[in-house]
Amino acid sequence: MQQMLAGLRILEVGHFVAAPFATRILGDLGADVIKIEALDGDPAREWGEKVDGRSLWWSMHGRNKRSVTLNLKHPSARGILLGLASKSDALIENFRPGQLAKLGFSPETLRQSRPDLVIAHISGYGQTGPYRDRAAFGVIGEAIGGLRYLTDNSPGTSNLPPVRVGVSIGDSVAGLYAALGVMGALWQRDRQGGDGVGRTLDVALTESILSLMEGMLPEYGELGTIKQPTGGGIATAAPTNAYPTADGGWILIAANSEPLFARLMNLIGCSQLIGAPGYRGNQERVSNVRQLDAIIGDWTRQYSVEQVEALLAKADIPGTKVFTAAEIAADPQYRDRAMVREVPDRHLGRAVLQAGVVPKVEGATDEVRWAGPALGEHTDAVLSELLGLGDGEIAKLRNEGVI
Amino acid sequence: MQQMLAGLRILEVGHFVAAPFATRILGDLGADVIKIEALDGDPAREWGEKVDGRSLWWSMHGRNKRSVTLNLKHPSARGILLGLASKSDALIENFRPGQLAKLGFSPETLRQSRPDLVIAHISGYGQTGPYRDRAAFGVIGEAIGGLRYLTDNSPGTSNLPPVRVGVSIGDSVAGLYAALGVMGALWQRDRQGGDGVGRTLDVALTESILSLMEGMLPEYGELGTIKQPTGGGIATAAPTNAYPTADGGWILIAANSEPLFARLMNLIGCSQLIGAPGYRGNQERVSNVRQLDAIIGDWTRQYSVEQVEALLAKADIPGTKVFTAAEIAADPQYRDRAMVREVPDRHLGRAVLQAGVVPKVEGATDEVRWAGPALGEHTDAVLSELLGLGDGEIAKLRNEGVI
Repeated sequence: MQQMLAGLRILEVGHFVAAPFATRILGDLGADVIKIEALDGDPAREWGEKVDGRSLWWSMHGRNKRSVTLNLKHPSARGILLGLASKSDALIENFRPGQLAKLGFSPETLRQSRPDLVIAHISGYGQTGPYRDRAAFGVIGEAIGGLRYLTDNSPGTSNLPPVRVGVSIGDSVAGLYAALGVMGALWQRDRQGGDGVGRTLDVALTESILSLMEGMLPEYGELGTIKQPTGGGIATAAPTNAYPTADGGWILIAANSEPLFARLMNLIGCSQLIGAPGYRGNQERVSNVRQLDAIIGDWTRQYSVEQVEALLAKADIPGTKVFTAAEIAADPQYRDRAMVREVPDRHLGRAVLQAGVVPKVEGATDEVRWAGPALGEHTDAVLSELLGLGDGEIAKLRNEGVI
Repeated sequence: MQQMLAGLRILEVGHFVAAPFATRILGDLGADVIKIEALDGDPAREWGEKVDGRSLWWSMHGRNKRSVTLNLKHPSARGILLGLASKSDALIENFRPGQLAKLGFSPETLRQSRPDLVIAHISGYGQTGPYRDRAAFGVIGEAIGGLRYLTDNSPGTSNLPPVRVGVSIGDSVAGLYAALGVMGALWQRDRQGGDGVGRTLDVALTESILSLMEGMLPEYGELGTIKQPTGGGIATAAPTNAYPTADGGWILIAANSEPLFARLMNLIGCSQLIGAPGYRGNQERVSNVRQLDAIIGDWTRQYSVEQVEALLAKADIPGTKVFTAAEIAADPQYRDRAMVREVPDRHLGRAVLQAGVVPKVEGATDEVRWAGPALGEHTDAVLSELLGLGDGEIAKLRNEGVI
């Protein structure tokens, strides 16, 4: 079966994380992604650890895309970008609001070339409103979305700041919403009985995070309660936490249902607590969580992480060590599903370890077609294939600093 | 303009967070979501703070859906679920792998009623592989996906465990991948020239998280380096961190570009560091980040959060306090974009504060049509409208414990 998004063409005018993440996901699923880059390239090409001058993150972040250089400030760029838009289903961009229009590529202009073009804008605060012009880095957006406050120990536990989720979660979640929005707009545009309309989508990083905040707003509005961080635990479930082990590590245990709680108590030699006052049902255990966590921690502290993990597995209680890159790379489940895999990277001359494709589509290949391209690697091929330009015209554009 | 997903019907056979989050997002954008619930309802109806016995989280989590009760173990449920599937575009479920098939609703059976039904399975580890049958709570999946390890202070900073992101981020991200996958499958099925195929999608919570882990795997594979947590900061950018304030709070500052660094140094009276050895360019500053963070912290510690925020805003340097529910509810940008809004909840008899709809679709309404329904609120209407059942037949099914 062909890849799920075969036949779809997406024009990315993006940089950094959010828009390129959206197109990585669409490209993973089979879309033809054309990434427009300034002549000095997406700064993300320089991020993270490098080998032979090549960013390893880029090998994955840029995969399955065709890189086309284009100096959007050059007058001759206009015809090229509009030409590429005319051959694309959707455009995804993450300039500051209004910036692309200032360069001469407003939605109205783009749609003169392609009337039903779907356009997705990604920005920190959205395309409208009093904060629209503010710069928003991921960490700022995550804090304003409410995630940073909740990613912390309970108030009073330490003098350390709330920690950052160790990846650009705000950008990634905004990218997912943009990819979803684009596919929704295309379905309504293209289906039989659809309306043929090229919608404009407005994805804000702050709002993408806020949309995940569960009962935070309803509970505040109705009761005035401010949702609080709970460290390794969950405010509404017990026992579930990270518990210390003899070798200085942590074991995660989630045993808040009645059968799991009983199995855990039997395992740790506390069967007298099953059904005992203060431990009957999740609600009672939540009220009593400090004492309960201390009891469990006294048990886990006697064993290494590996030992506790084995004991939990034998008793069929959900638990796991905290995986690092090493455990992930070695995990048999990930390997079985090709979710950890080697992807040939011809720029490095060898395969690079990468995450696989989400979601799995039954019957379709989930191969990664190529690793992150060199800057402008596909400029000539794309201008020739989609715009019919000849070698002479392309050479002239290159000499003039357009591409 | 009609809502973006008007005309789309999604059958949810889900509970807890992941599948219901996927359908919340699709319902927000206009899909008709029919949520099949056991006779005792989705346990998430009981989660979080309640008013008059009603969960406030549920008011938002269940919004825009039609609740239909159905005892899937009853022999008479078969015709009803297959009938509803025949009238739906896609089905999203998050039972344990194989469970729905055991109940008699394998993809093959479902497609006897609706040959082009798109089916999305969401589970902890995926539908295949050695771990497929394991129970996976969100905290376990997030740890195996690599997120938990990175959500921590730098190694050696404290004896506290890595913290949980304060919401069910693994479930939400898996839900987003499922919603995106469904729309991609529907586009390929329904577009002119599409293939008419009802694809089966397999979304794993662990894999959804792993897909966000940036350079973690490529860097480990190539260099053997294990990506480490960095507390409030970012390993590859400086200065950007959470800094302490005089009133015991934290201010986030992101000033790692050259112009922002210069503006920040001028603001805090350290202009001699602009261009000084050890501070020239992001790379030098990253090597020197402890000293630099200490200098900035000495300055922020002299002021309240509000004062630092005002000084940063005046100097056009990205910075923010860490928002709680209270700041989010009061924020003018969120209000301006209806991203924080009152939604009428007829079960409470008043409006409930909720997050708005992501993404914004230009020209389309983003109203929430209704808050989370009562259990089985739409059973009669749906069975009548979609299956043509009369009052007598519905009463009989109810008497027999089918609905």
